[in-house]
Amino acid sequence: MVSSKQSTTPHPLDPLRAGEVQLVSKTLVQHLGCPIQEVRFKVIDLAEPPKELTLSHLYHDGPAPDRKSRVYFHRKNDQTMVVAIVNITKALVEKVYETPNDQGPVDWTEFGLVHDACLKHPKVLAEVAKLKLPPNAKIINDPWAYGTDDGDERRRLFQCYMYATLNDDPQANHYSIPLPLAPVFDAHTLELVDLQKLPLGADAAVDEDTRPWDPVEAVEYSADILGPDKFRKDLQPLQITQPEGPSFKITGRQVQWQKWSFQLGWNLREGPVLHDVKYDGRSLFYRVSMSEMTVPYGDPRSPYHRKQAFDLGDSGFGLTSNSLALGCDCLGHIAYFNGVRVTAAGEPVVMPNVVCMHEVDEGIGWKHTNVRNGHSSVVRDRRLVVQCTATVANYEYILAFVLDQAASLHIEVRATGIVSTTPIRRGIHVPWGTTVAPGVLAVNHQHLFCVRIDPHMSGSRRNTITYDDCIPVTNEPELDPFGCAFRLESTPIKKPGGYDLSLGKARVYKIINESQKNPISGKPVGYKLHAVPSQMMMMGPQTFNYRRGIFASRPIWVTKYRDDELWVAGEFTNQSREDTGLAVWASRDENTQDEDVVLWHSFGLTHVTRPEDFPVMPVEKISLSLKPENFFEFNPSNDVPRSSQSQNKSTLYTSSEETCCKI
Amino acid sequence: MVSSKQSTTPHPLDPLRAGEVQLVSKTLVQHLGCPIQEVRFKVIDLAEPPKELTLSHLYHDGPAPDRKSRVYFHRKNDQTMVVAIVNITKALVEKVYETPNDQGPVDWTEFGLVHDACLKHPKVLAEVAKLKLPPNAKIINDPWAYGTDDGDERRRLFQCYMYATLNDDPQANHYSIPLPLAPVFDAHTLELVDLQKLPLGADAAVDEDTRPWDPVEAVEYSADILGPDKFRKDLQPLQITQPEGPSFKITGRQVQWQKWSFQLGWNLREGPVLHDVKYDGRSLFYRVSMSEMTVPYGDPRSPYHRKQAFDLGDSGFGLTSNSLALGCDCLGHIAYFNGVRVTAAGEPVVMPNVVCMHEVDEGIGWKHTNVRNGHSSVVRDRRLVVQCTATVANYEYILAFVLDQAASLHIEVRATGIVSTTPIRRGIHVPWGTTVAPGVLAVNHQHLFCVRIDPHMSGSRRNTITYDDCIPVTNEPELDPFGCAFRLESTPIKKPGGYDLSLGKARVYKIINESQKNPISGKPVGYKLHAVPSQMMMMGPQTFNYRRGIFASRPIWVTKYRDDELWVAGEFTNQSREDTGLAVWASRDENTQDEDVVLWHSFGLTHVTRPEDFPVMPVEKISLSLKPENFFEFNPSNDVPRSSQSQNKSTLYTSSEETCCKI
Repeated sequence: MVSSKQSTTPHPLDPLRAGEVQLVSKTLVQHLGCPIQEVRFKVIDLAEPPKELTLSHLYHDGPAPDRKSRVYFHRKNDQTMVVAIVNITKALVEKVYETPNDQGPVDWTEFGLVHDACLKHPKVLAEVAKLKLPPNAKIINDPWAYGTDDGDERRRLFQCYMYATLNDDPQANHYSIPLPLAPVFDAHTLELVDLQKLPLGADAAVDEDTRPWDPVEAVEYSADILGPDKFRKDLQPLQITQPEGPSFKITGRQVQWQKWSFQLGWNLREGPVLHDVKYDGRSLFYRVSMSEMTVPYGDPRSPYHRKQAFDLGDSGFGLTSNSLALGCDCLGHIAYFNGVRVTAAGEPVVMPNVVCMHEVDEGIGWKHTNVRNGHSSVVRDRRLVVQCTATVANYEYILAFVLDQAASLHIEVRATGIVSTTPIRRGIHVPWGTTVAPGVLAVNHQHLFCVRIDPHMSGSRRNTITYDDCIPVTNEPELDPFGCAFRLESTPIKKPGGYDLSLGKARVYKIINESQKNPISGKPVGYKLHAVPSQMMMMGPQTFNYRRGIFASRPIWVTKYRDDELWVAGEFTNQSREDTGLAVWASRDENTQDEDVVLWHSFGLTHVTRPEDFPVMPVEKISLSLKPENFFEFNPSNDVPRSSQSQNKSTLYTSSEETCCKI
Repeated sequence: MVSSKQSTTPHPLDPLRAGEVQLVSKTLVQHLGCPIQEVRFKVIDLAEPPKELTLSHLYHDGPAPDRKSRVYFHRKNDQTMVVAIVNITKALVEKVYETPNDQGPVDWTEFGLVHDACLKHPKVLAEVAKLKLPPNAKIINDPWAYGTDDGDERRRLFQCYMYATLNDDPQANHYSIPLPLAPVFDAHTLELVDLQKLPLGADAAVDEDTRPWDPVEAVEYSADILGPDKFRKDLQPLQITQPEGPSFKITGRQVQWQKWSFQLGWNLREGPVLHDVKYDGRSLFYRVSMSEMTVPYGDPRSPYHRKQAFDLGDSGFGLTSNSLALGCDCLGHIAYFNGVRVTAAGEPVVMPNVVCMHEVDEGIGWKHTNVRNGHSSVVRDRRLVVQCTATVANYEYILAFVLDQAASLHIEVRATGIVSTTPIRRGIHVPWGTTVAPGVLAVNHQHLFCVRIDPHMSGSRRNTITYDDCIPVTNEPELDPFGCAFRLESTPIKKPGGYDLSLGKARVYKIINESQKNPISGKPVGYKLHAVPSQMMMMGPQTFNYRRGIFASRPIWVTKYRDDELWVAGEFTNQSREDTGLAVWASRDENTQDEDVVLWHSFGLTHVTRPEDFPVMPVEKISLSLKPENFFEFNPSNDVPRSSQSQNKSTLYTSSEETCCKI
C-alpha cells in the first residue's frame, strides 16, 4: 500500500487518517461529557472544507482550511441519529444536532447485531425448523435496509433475507438456497417486528404453514466445491510486466501520470473521489465522484415492493470496499491505498488496500497510415485506472476512474457479484424475474447511478453547462439545395433542473468556460460528456421509489454549486421518504450560466436477469466519458511516443502448419 | 503470418487463395476468348456457396460445395462493369453479365491513374501555380468517389481533393494544407471534367481567380518532423508476456479459443468475417460481418454536398487493410492472416498480415466476495481479438470481433486517422464544421455502420427476432399497490422491415430459437443484442444521401434469409442512386417468425469535429455485443480458472515515501 506523506500536514481534501479519527472520537466524547461507552459511533469521515477556502489555499497562497470531520453517532439507548461537526485542527466540536426523522447508514456493528438476532430468535428458528432442512444445513441471513412503504414509520428496521447452505466451504453459495422467510427486526431494540414469509408462487400469497424445503442442488462458484474437473484447461497465463516501473508518481495522495494530476480522495460513503484534477497544469475539475446508486426491484409482491437499496447512502462504497489482493484484481504494477473507518466504540480501523491504481493498455489510441508509402504512426491507448470493488451483501460494484493520454476521463462501473435471489416453487415462472436456478428467482431490477461533476474548467469557477444538438437544415433550398446540411444548435442551461438526452439530435452536454476561447476553433474551451443513454426509473412520481430518488428520473441535472451538496438523493437515504438532495437543489430559482455549477449525470441499466447471471454474474460494464472539446489546440496525445516493437516486445504466433504450403 | 492448411481442400467459406485467384483470371480470360491485355480486373473474391449446401456439408456429411468466385472487370476501352461467376472447382465460367448502370468499387490501378492524371493535368497545374506555393511544396491529391447529385450521371467520376506538403518526410501531414481545388476526372477517359474550386468563406462562393496561398504551418504527427523534444518522456514500457503461448489454436482458418470455434473468413469488401461460430460445440451464428459504412458530410456547399463515402462498397475494408506490424497494433502473442487481391492484369497479390489475432485482458470478468469471511473469487475477462485496420485515404477504421469467456461476442469499431479537411480562410468560422488548424476546416459528418448477423441459434436455421420492452405496471392497484412493478413485453417480428430502439422501454432485440427452451428459466434459448443507440442519418428521404443508404435510417432491420444478400446498401454503392440492398429485401412481404432470418444493426456516430481530433484523431470507440440470454444453464465463465497471483505475477508499487509514518 502507498502511505500518505504523513510527515507533513495533510492536503485539505485528503481522507481522514487513523490518528484524526481517534482525535475526533475523543474530542466528541469529551465534548458530550459522557463515558465513551455511552456513545455508539457510526461514521467518522472528512467534512470537506468550503471550496472558496480550498481554492484560495491551493491556488492563491491562502491559509490551509481547518481539517474537519462529519460524525454520525447515537447515544446509548437512544435511537435518535446525531450529527456532529468536529474541527480537527482546533480539536473542538463545532456543531452537534439531532436528526430524529432520519436514519443513518448501516454500520458493521449494527449489521452484526441484527444478523445475530435473526439467527437466534426462537420464532425464526421455529419457522426454519418447519423447512426440515438437512442436518448439515447452515442458516444464513442478509439484513437489508428495510426500504419505505409507509411515510409514518420511524423505527429503524432491517429485513433479513434468509438462505441456507449445505456446504462448509467458505464460498458456498447460499444465494442458491433462498428460504421463504424474511423476518423484520428493529435495529435498536433487536426485537422481531414481523416474521414475514415470502411468496413462492405467481401471486403475493404465502404459505400459511411453512412447508418443508423442496431439495435442490446449489449452483456453486467455489473452486473447491466445483473441483478441478469442472474447470477449462486451456487458458494460458497472460502477464503484464513493466520492467522500468509504472508511469505514475504518488506523493502523499497526489497522483501524477502522463500530464494528469489529481488528489486522490476517499470516504466511507463514496469510496474514491478525484479532487483538483488537472491536465498539463490546467484545471479541469474540482471534484469528480460517484454520488449515489439506487436499485429498485420490479416485483410488487411484499416485501419486494420495498426493496430499494441506495448503496452509497445506505451503506457506502467506501465502507463496503474489498481489501484488494495483488494479482487478482489487476495485472501489472499495482499501487494500493488504504481507508479508515471507525468502530462503534470510536476506534479507527485501517481498511487495507481499498483502492488500487495501475496502468492498462487499451489497444490502439490513434493510428494513421500514409497509403502512398505505407508509413504508419501508431500510439497505444495507455490508461491509468483507479479502482475499488464494493461488496454490498450479494452484489459487487467495481467503480473505476480511468484517465487516458488524450486527456479524457472515463468513469466505469462493472456490475457483478450474485443477483439478489428469492425462493420460487419449482415449475412456476413469474413475470417479475427469471428462474436462474432450480427454486431460485432473480427479480428484475434497475441500477441507477448518478455521477457528480464539479468543474473547474481551465481554472475558472465560472462555467456553463450547454447542450449541442445536431439539427438538419430544412426548408432552406437556397442554402442547402440537396438537403444534406446539418447545424449545431447550442443551448446554455440558465436554470437548475433536470434535462434530457436526445439521441435523435445527437445531443451532447458540455461544460464550457465562456470567457476562454480556443484560439484555433474560436469556440469556448470545454469538456463534453459522453453520456450513457439509459432507461430512467420506471416507477412513477406517486411512488416512494421515485420520490426517494428523483435524480433517477432524468439523465442530466444542473445545480448551482453550494458547499456540502454532494449526495444526490440527500444525506440520509436509509428508509428515506423523499429525496432531500437534488430534488431541493435543482428547484431553486437561480442563475446557472457562467456561474459555479455542478453537472450530474444519472444513468444505469435495467437488469432482466438470465440463468447466465448465476451463480456469479459476468460483469455488465457501463462507461461514461468526459472528453475535451476545444480545450486543446490539437490532439493532446500527439506527443505520446509511437508504439514500437522495441518497447512492446510482442511475440509472433507460428502455427504447426506453418511449414507446409505457404501462400 | 498463419498459413492456411493448404495441403487439403479449403473450407467452403475460406477466402480465395492466390492460386485460386490466378485460376479464376485465367479461366475467365479463356472464356472471353480475348487476349488478357483486353481485360482489366477490379475484384476477384470468393462467391460464397449457398447456405443450404454449406450446412449440409458441415453438419450432415453432404458434399463440399463448389468453390466459386465473383469477379468484377472491364473490357479494355469499355466502361461497362462486367460481373462474372467463375466456378473454381470445375474451372469454368458460370455467368457473365454487364451492369451498365452500376459503378464498381475503386481499385488501386484506377486510383493511381486518376491520381496521376490530376497531378499532371496542365489546367490543374496552372491553377495550382496561382497559389504561389513555396518552391519546396509537393502537391498531393486524394481521388474521392464522386458521390451522387444527379440521377442521370453515368460517367465514372472522381473528385480529387488536393493538398500540399512542405516537408519531404514520408508522414508529412498534407491534410494540414488543403488547397482550394477539387478537379473532377473521368476515370475511364482520364479527362478533366470540371476544375472545381472550393469555397473559402462562409457561403458557397468560390474565388473566381485563385488567390495566393495564405501561409500556415502544418500541424504534424510525424515523429521525425516533431523531433524528440516534442514527446513526453515519462511513459514507461508495458509488455504482455504469455510464457506458455496463446490460448488459441489455429487449423487452416479455423480458430479455437476457450470453447469458441469459428472459421475466419476474409474478403476484399468486408475484411474479416466470422463464419460458423460455435460455443462449446453449439452453433450460434452462421455468419457475422460488418456489412457497410457510409459517411455523409453535413456541408451544403458544393462539392461537399456530394461527399458520401461507402467505405465497404466503394473501396473495401479488406482492400484497404493495413499490413500489420508486430508490436505496434497489438501486445502479447500475435497471429496474423494474409489476404489476396488481384491486379488489373489478373495476377494475385498477397496482402500480408491484414488481420491480426491476439488475446487481451479486459480487467475483472466477475467477482464475488463473501463478506462473512472475506473469501473472494475473481475471474479475469480474457478476450480474443480479431482485428484489422482499414485506411481509406485520410481515415482509419479499426474493426474488431472480440470474443469473451462468458460466451459474448463483441463487435468494436475504433474511428481514427485524419479527419477529411478542406480549406477555410483564416478567421472565418462556418456552421458546417470546426476549424481544427489554421486554414483547415473539418466538416461535421456522420459515420453510419451496419452489422449483419446471420444466426444459427443452437444449430437451427429457424430463428425469430423479438424485442423485449420493460413496461411499468400501471392502473393495477390490486396487483401492484405500491406502483413499483414492471413487466417484460416480448414482441416477435413477423415481417421484414426496419425497427426502432426504445431507450425509455429498455428495449432489447433478441434472436431466439423458439423450439428450444432453457430448462432452468423455461424461456427460449437465444442471444440478445446490446445495440448502440445512435442518431440515424439526418438527411431526409428526398435526398440522395438517404436513398443511397436506407439502412442508416433505422437502427434495426430484419430480413428473411436469401443467399447473396450480404451488402446492406446494395452490391454497387459507388455513385449509386438508390439502395438496392436492404431497401428491397426489407420490403418483401414474407414471414420472418420461426424462419431463416437475418438481423441487421445500424449504428454510428455524429462527428462534430474538434481541434483535439487533429492531426490524428484519438480513437472514438463504438462497441456492440451479442450476449447469451437463456442460452446456457448458468454463467458460461463459471469454469474459468480463478485469477491468482501465481499465474498473474503482478508487482507491488511502493512509493519512496513508504518508509516514513505509515498509517
